[in-house]
Amino acid sequence: MLRTHTCGELSLEHVNQEVVLCGWVQRVRDKGGMIWLDLRDRYGITQLLFEEGKTQANVLEIARSLGREFVISAKGQVIERLSKNDKIATGDIEIRISELNILNPAKLPPFLIEDETDGGDDIRMKYRYLDLRRNNVRKNLQLRHQVARHTRAYLDELDFIEVETPVLIKSTPEGARDFVVPSRMNPGEFYALPQSPQTFKQLLMVAGFDRYYQIVKCFRDEDLRADRQPEFTQIDCEMSFVTQEDVLNTFEGLIRNLFSKVKGLDLPEVPRMTYADAMRLYGSDKPDIRFDMQFVELKGAAQDLTSGKGFSVFDDAELVVGICAPDSAVYTRKQLDELTEWLKRPQIGAKGLIYVRYNTDGSLKSSVDKFYAEEDIKKWAEAFNAKPGDLILIISGAADKARKQLNELRLEMGTRLGLRSSDEYSALWVLDFPLLEYGEAENRWFAMHHPFTSPKPEDIPLLDKNLGAVRANAYDMVINGVEVGGGSVRIFEKELQKQMFGILGFTEEEAQEQFGFLMNAFEFGAPPHAGIAFGFDRLCSIFGGADSIRDFIAFPKNNSGRDVMIDSPSVISDAQLKELAIKVE
Amino acid sequence: MLRTHTCGELSLEHVNQEVVLCGWVQRVRDKGGMIWLDLRDRYGITQLLFEEGKTQANVLEIARSLGREFVISAKGQVIERLSKNDKIATGDIEIRISELNILNPAKLPPFLIEDETDGGDDIRMKYRYLDLRRNNVRKNLQLRHQVARHTRAYLDELDFIEVETPVLIKSTPEGARDFVVPSRMNPGEFYALPQSPQTFKQLLMVAGFDRYYQIVKCFRDEDLRADRQPEFTQIDCEMSFVTQEDVLNTFEGLIRNLFSKVKGLDLPEVPRMTYADAMRLYGSDKPDIRFDMQFVELKGAAQDLTSGKGFSVFDDAELVVGICAPDSAVYTRKQLDELTEWLKRPQIGAKGLIYVRYNTDGSLKSSVDKFYAEEDIKKWAEAFNAKPGDLILIISGAADKARKQLNELRLEMGTRLGLRSSDEYSALWVLDFPLLEYGEAENRWFAMHHPFTSPKPEDIPLLDKNLGAVRANAYDMVINGVEVGGGSVRIFEKELQKQMFGILGFTEEEAQEQFGFLMNAFEFGAPPHAGIAFGFDRLCSIFGGADSIRDFIAFPKNNSGRDVMIDSPSVISDAQLKELAIKVE
Repeated sequence: MLRTHTCGELSLEHVNQEVVLCGWVQRVRDKGGMIWLDLRDRYGITQLLFEEGKTQANVLEIARSLGREFVISAKGQVIERLSKNDKIATGDIEIRISELNILNPAKLPPFLIEDETDGGDDIRMKYRYLDLRRNNVRKNLQLRHQVARHTRAYLDELDFIEVETPVLIKSTPEGARDFVVPSRMNPGEFYALPQSPQTFKQLLMVAGFDRYYQIVKCFRDEDLRADRQPEFTQIDCEMSFVTQEDVLNTFEGLIRNLFSKVKGLDLPEVPRMTYADAMRLYGSDKPDIRFDMQFVELKGAAQDLTSGKGFSVFDDAELVVGICAPDSAVYTRKQLDELTEWLKRPQIGAKGLIYVRYNTDGSLKSSVDKFYAEEDIKKWAEAFNAKPGDLILIISGAADKARKQLNELRLEMGTRLGLRSSDEYSALWVLDFPLLEYGEAENRWFAMHHPFTSPKPEDIPLLDKNLGAVRANAYDMVINGVEVGGGSVRIFEKELQKQMFGILGFTEEEAQEQFGFLMNAFEFGAPPHAGIAFGFDRLCSIFGGADSIRDFIAFPKNNSGRDVMIDSPSVISDAQLKELAIKVE
Repeated sequence: MLRTHTCGELSLEHVNQEVVLCGWVQRVRDKGGMIWLDLRDRYGITQLLFEEGKTQANVLEIARSLGREFVISAKGQVIERLSKNDKIATGDIEIRISELNILNPAKLPPFLIEDETDGGDDIRMKYRYLDLRRNNVRKNLQLRHQVARHTRAYLDELDFIEVETPVLIKSTPEGARDFVVPSRMNPGEFYALPQSPQTFKQLLMVAGFDRYYQIVKCFRDEDLRADRQPEFTQIDCEMSFVTQEDVLNTFEGLIRNLFSKVKGLDLPEVPRMTYADAMRLYGSDKPDIRFDMQFVELKGAAQDLTSGKGFSVFDDAELVVGICAPDSAVYTRKQLDELTEWLKRPQIGAKGLIYVRYNTDGSLKSSVDKFYAEEDIKKWAEAFNAKPGDLILIISGAADKARKQLNELRLEMGTRLGLRSSDEYSALWVLDFPLLEYGEAENRWFAMHHPFTSPKPEDIPLLDKNLGAVRANAYDMVINGVEVGGGSVRIFEKELQKQMFGILGFTEEEAQEQFGFLMNAFEFGAPPHAGIAFGFDRLCSIFGGADSIRDFIAFPKNNSGRDVMIDSPSVISDAQLKELAIKVE
């Protein structure tokens, strides 16, 4: 090795030893004939000392020629530091340098390589290799490695086998848009990159592999939002001869194990909620249950505390639903107006917001006092179980819309009230998703999870009568309001799978052409099986307490799907196109 | 779970317990009112017992309706077997069944699900999920998982971080042919799938990651041979602040660790050989050193024991070189003729074969007795260090050709003599590869390893004078004559990298356009670094004692790059093509 130690390991026990360190120049202070140099590598920072009179002149000269991010090797003796630095692991010692070599000089970086950098997103993406030198970014990727490591250890222990499934597969019309790869050897034909290894993992169950997992790259050619990447990583799992309950237990175990191993946290047993309850109580299939503020319906299926008082907005509404924000009665009229405007933005699209301020003196003040007597408002406050100091916020309209809007408001109030700390964790299982959802635009039914999800056995008779009412044996794991994983018990019988494709609008021929290999496989002894997949980038970002997945990916792409560092995608040569028998339009 | 135990775990200690097993019907014997059923899962086989009079009639009826590969669940009591079967782990017990359910019936499989199957390659590829049920195939993939697991454990222990590099990257003209992916969001532009994460791992070194690895899919759109796959897996590694020696030691450690953990074998220290020696002594840069038979040059750089005796074939030859096959003097004239014909096939293309039989009585008989006196032949025998009973086989001609042909002959003789057993292992480091090789057809120099490989510092002056003589700091690991891994110390200075691209025929502009991101990165403080990559599929096949990698890949493609199971690649829709702004020619 070019070094005897790393920059993170020397301490008082090494005093007097002669060592060689290699790394990057983080900082140089040159004062009163003394030079202190912070040398950095992945493992830490060690202080190098040069001293006029004691250090050889040529070494001093080299030391004075160094700039930030120069790569050097330095030999010297470990000595005890006079003024210790307890902020770093090596803060008790420094190295009195006798030999110094520049291994590679460095131009001035375009932004500061510090935890707090002055570089904007674009420049940091272009010089990603410099951004990755920053402690916090590198630590995210080290955390990612730890999450992967403990995931594998947990699953290996339970007899899961990691099996690599192919990346060059077949394009299928169901689901998101595929990335495709023209085949040179089969001109005019294309491979597709997998959106998930779904059918392959099911085939592995048919093959008797019993327990499969894979930490695997998946691909979706979708329009990108801040938090989506065209390629992403999944912890993909499948088990045979199990019920939904077994899958929930096994993977709740995984997540709790990861919290324990990676975060040192004891995650409590994960509560469960049906999709129906999640929508009713939170207006979302991924409720953030770090805080309460459950929805209360003033006018809904169970009661009507609003109608007939002449307030047409509520009278005409399908649903009147609200939340009770604790200790928020202090909100001024101006703040409430601002909140209303926030709700009216096109992204949310609420028509308005009704509030009831439960003042600390016990009085109630609402924005609809004109229509409702104090008696009425009191009943509302009781329905919300409100206490003096609380603020009740109410939205009305079509049920689905009102719930979605109120979900946004609830999350916003949770954030404002500091109830959504990124180092607190609440996990939740959401169960009993609908099997199907109706696409109004396309005028047909779509699989809510995917076409291989099994309906609940007791709901199978509804497949002939009431498709919207059929519940699936499907489940999502939600942490802090973010869906981190989801899965289902699968269909494993050919006839049911055929029926499912029929419901989704496939002709028998189309179903056979696209998924015949799977349905045929079901005829040769397919075991009951079920599985789950976790969004690995997302899971890592949650463990890292961050909102964006981008900083948990070594080389992410921007919102146009470009890697600006390597400048990809790019034009390819005519010769390549010709060989592939394709032409750019 | 639908079962209480697997089919591989019950033994005498479970006798009298009531258990539920699930699995596949392997075999049913129905004789004299007794039915024995072998139930199979991934973990083993357990015998189920049904008995007329003792088993309920309806259960018996179901048992009699079962076919091969039916998926069933069966409940019963563990009892001691009368006639034990010590070939299987559960051979001491059987289960007296009280309840029996068919979970899924099965059509008759198109081939036998047994270790020795009657299915040909094509049918087994089409029904890969059935082929994977066979013990030996499944065990290959379990072995693969173990190799991956122990690789990660070893590298994690040494502070390597696994980092995922992108799959959607940029097409570059150097190296093999890229698979490309049209970008919908950037019409007319394409991503490429990585042939290796080479530049990314180097950027991770620039980023200070210090030690990186990844078990990663790579892609090459090359014409396929029996043993090549368009997508393959690599153990990809890189280290900073190291010399070649450090890389060799670290990864020799990996390989020896894998042999110990996966095979229970103590692989001795791996010998080292220069490329020049390998070519001179074995005619190959990947010699199989499980056996000796090193080349001896009768006419070459060191000596000439053949010229001037009127045998023009040798007189005109640049090189006369041979091997001494032990105990092969028994070869008859007919066998030698057949061997000569084998060598003359176009795949090898030898002009002929000269032999010297060293008979056990001490006499020497050669096919060139006409030209050489016994005295001459004796000198040859001495040069080969031959002993009575040996057979000397000699090839002549242009040096490169003769060596290649003799390499083939040596391997063939090794096989015939049983010296190449698949459960014996000899590893070897081949060092000091040439940096460049001349492409006669293209009339330019090519990087033998890749353009990022560093020349030996002492050979850098030769870059201006004698390109063919420049040696690289490059190394291959060879096991049993198969290259399982290779790597190099990398160039880490911009100017040298620029010079290298110049030598390879890049204009400065082309180099900047294709690899500017890397050369720019070298200007911001790049550490000295080196790395290696192992062919993971190949490594697994060697551990599995097999020649082909295909059975160590869950879902391989055939020689036309097709996955015949899912029928891919395939035609995609016009709408897809239009969205991607491409057209099939």
